[in-house]
Amino acid sequence: MNISTEFGKHVLLPEGLDARIKEAANSLFEQKMDFTGWTDLPEKWLKGEAFAEIQKTADEIRKKAKLLIVIGIGGSYLGAKAVIEALAPEKMLGHPAADGRDTQIAFAGCNLSSSYHKVLLNAVKTMDTEICVISKSGTTTEPALAFALFKEALIKKYGRAEAMKRIVAITDEKKGTLREEADREGYKTFIVPDDVGGRYSVLTPVGLLPIAAAGIDIRRLLKGALEMKESIQSKPGTSGPLAYAGARYRLSTEKGGTGVWPKTTEIFEYYEPRLAYFAEWLKQLFGESEGKEGLGIFPASLSFSADLHSMGQFLQEGRQIFFETVLDVREPGTDLLAPMGAGPLLEGRSMNQVERAATDGVIRAHEAAGVPVIRISLPDFSPNVMGQMIYFFEMNCAVTALLSGVNPFDQPGVEAYKAEMKAGLKK
Amino acid sequence: MNISTEFGKHVLLPEGLDARIKEAANSLFEQKMDFTGWTDLPEKWLKGEAFAEIQKTADEIRKKAKLLIVIGIGGSYLGAKAVIEALAPEKMLGHPAADGRDTQIAFAGCNLSSSYHKVLLNAVKTMDTEICVISKSGTTTEPALAFALFKEALIKKYGRAEAMKRIVAITDEKKGTLREEADREGYKTFIVPDDVGGRYSVLTPVGLLPIAAAGIDIRRLLKGALEMKESIQSKPGTSGPLAYAGARYRLSTEKGGTGVWPKTTEIFEYYEPRLAYFAEWLKQLFGESEGKEGLGIFPASLSFSADLHSMGQFLQEGRQIFFETVLDVREPGTDLLAPMGAGPLLEGRSMNQVERAATDGVIRAHEAAGVPVIRISLPDFSPNVMGQMIYFFEMNCAVTALLSGVNPFDQPGVEAYKAEMKAGLKK
Repeated sequence: MNISTEFGKHVLLPEGLDARIKEAANSLFEQKMDFTGWTDLPEKWLKGEAFAEIQKTADEIRKKAKLLIVIGIGGSYLGAKAVIEALAPEKMLGHPAADGRDTQIAFAGCNLSSSYHKVLLNAVKTMDTEICVISKSGTTTEPALAFALFKEALIKKYGRAEAMKRIVAITDEKKGTLREEADREGYKTFIVPDDVGGRYSVLTPVGLLPIAAAGIDIRRLLKGALEMKESIQSKPGTSGPLAYAGARYRLSTEKGGTGVWPKTTEIFEYYEPRLAYFAEWLKQLFGESEGKEGLGIFPASLSFSADLHSMGQFLQEGRQIFFETVLDVREPGTDLLAPMGAGPLLEGRSMNQVERAATDGVIRAHEAAGVPVIRISLPDFSPNVMGQMIYFFEMNCAVTALLSGVNPFDQPGVEAYKAEMKAGLKK
Repeated sequence: MNISTEFGKHVLLPEGLDARIKEAANSLFEQKMDFTGWTDLPEKWLKGEAFAEIQKTADEIRKKAKLLIVIGIGGSYLGAKAVIEALAPEKMLGHPAADGRDTQIAFAGCNLSSSYHKVLLNAVKTMDTEICVISKSGTTTEPALAFALFKEALIKKYGRAEAMKRIVAITDEKKGTLREEADREGYKTFIVPDDVGGRYSVLTPVGLLPIAAAGIDIRRLLKGALEMKESIQSKPGTSGPLAYAGARYRLSTEKGGTGVWPKTTEIFEYYEPRLAYFAEWLKQLFGESEGKEGLGIFPASLSFSADLHSMGQFLQEGRQIFFETVLDVREPGTDLLAPMGAGPLLEGRSMNQVERAATDGVIRAHEAAGVPVIRISLPDFSPNVMGQMIYFFEMNCAVTALLSGVNPFDQPGVEAYKAEMKAGLKK
């Protein structure tokens, strides 16, 4: 089953962009630009030896550890967290349905909150722990600080020799602080490829190892990504999955019907809370790829139906600067039946039926208000579908950026605050 | 210690608005409009009998139950969740630091996800549970469905008679489905006042009971709110806390320096992840109060420093449609010291020092890029400070809406999707 895209009546269709989209897609597949190594990751892994090594390490972690602390920030954690929360939320440390038998996953080094990290450091005391530290350079402040703290905790708990065996580093092949330390201390390592940027790295060991450690079938994830690639290659223009890129480009640069145009903001909406981090991953992918040279579509996200009771008013009648992209899961899997006494409209209905009525009803209501709505249908929550989603959005993001004339693969602006922060620390 | 506001150099200062802001504030304090009952809640509670009854019920829940399921959506859960996650995150069901002795809190009926609710229904089987159902009418779909499910689970577990004793309803004083049921079944009840709308209801029993059940001192929360009220009343114009409203109004309606003007989007930013739901509460407050008649500032939020590694690029160099409002906690409480080997810049520093350097550095970097930045400093994480924050934002939100000429207290647009959803269910 494949994901599919449906454009509402106020969406500007990507007519006239067929040739440009094909050209952009081809340049990505042919890897003519720097940092386009991600386009052939699925087939590379699926036929390669390295894949088995990732799976083997993940299996060892699952056997040995009750807790895996994944240390990374930005592209070094968002993809893994997105996939794990979507497909195996009960594997996250602290999830109410965690059964205590499987390895639980926690992410660290992705903020500077002491209270957040203290909780995780306490968990290390009582749970058998391994660390997976992910950093190309090893010098990014947040993960460097967290790694120092958790390494200290491991050494305290296990002694130095055993602690060093409980660390897996995913880093540069040859250079950098973390690579040097890994070689010196003998950490098990995997490589962050040179030709894949952080936000496109979920299908490298950066994402695959933590995802596999959560017990998710990474072969099916990669197969889903490959299916999407083939689907794009068979219809590389506006008649295939890249129509979404064309619509985004036109919505953000041209004038359409009612409301404010061009649209400055794209709202990613989902009804299943387990897609929350997939939306965060999308924000990085789009925000960092497109937000440069004074351009870019501001990416926001809303968790429905919760946020219909907060932002619903604004969407219906507020300043119409946005279009909506709905992540619509057709078969969420589990279901619950409304019991007797639930009221005339609900009795005999299941929660999924009500969710379906809400999803479709909201689209009708917002379209009636003039909002352009794009519906992306996910058949279910499976590794295959998530693999398709990853490749679909990566390609569409890169193509929209190329249509806009910006480089989807650099991030010249992220150094500015780091320089200011370091200046502050040097004082 | 009081919260304070600081305007960056690109913020349009609220000059010329002093008289209009004073007039708006006075009309709110004098409760001339409908739904302005929230402006004197702090003093009303602090001197009243009803306050003791809320505290007593919360104490009974804490004694009797290991799990409190709070059922509500929109304004019926966001305020309580915001305060509990900020001040007592370890009381949330599933928090890794939950100690199992205190009552844990979970929120239900705030979405239509079966997997989300199934996890909570399973928790009811193993934990002594009480329910707090919050709905003015009793007919809102999401909480009505969840209430039916959890009531069924309680009856199954305890038998009908005991189950009915484990339900507290917060609802209309006289009318509605839930009021009728509560009277019939003999639920303990508290009242949602007629003159306070959902998004302004956190200092009514809607917020106070769940917050008190989490062990948070609601008297100190109310005192903080009262202090902010007095602070506003002593300086009701642009020299006091309502200067923020004036700045928001000017930023969103006038032309300033570089970038796109007027600003369409306000980004609430925080460095402590426990403020995530406070930001969600802000989105409802502002989005629903201002987003009407084609107007309103689109409210978004970012969790730093995590999101600096995703949206940082956009903020620095993307389409400049936004201003930033930073929630800066001066003393986050707990701290961690970077161990030896953390690298030359980090060794000997504490995590809070690094967080401080990041907060200040980011503001400098974004101001250098031309972004208007408003810093709201919170002295610490205390009930008093959270009370100040609630009243500060409620007043500033209502005043900005009044400056813009829209009614801050209605939400005519939220019925549209409900009608469409119900039409879908009737099919």
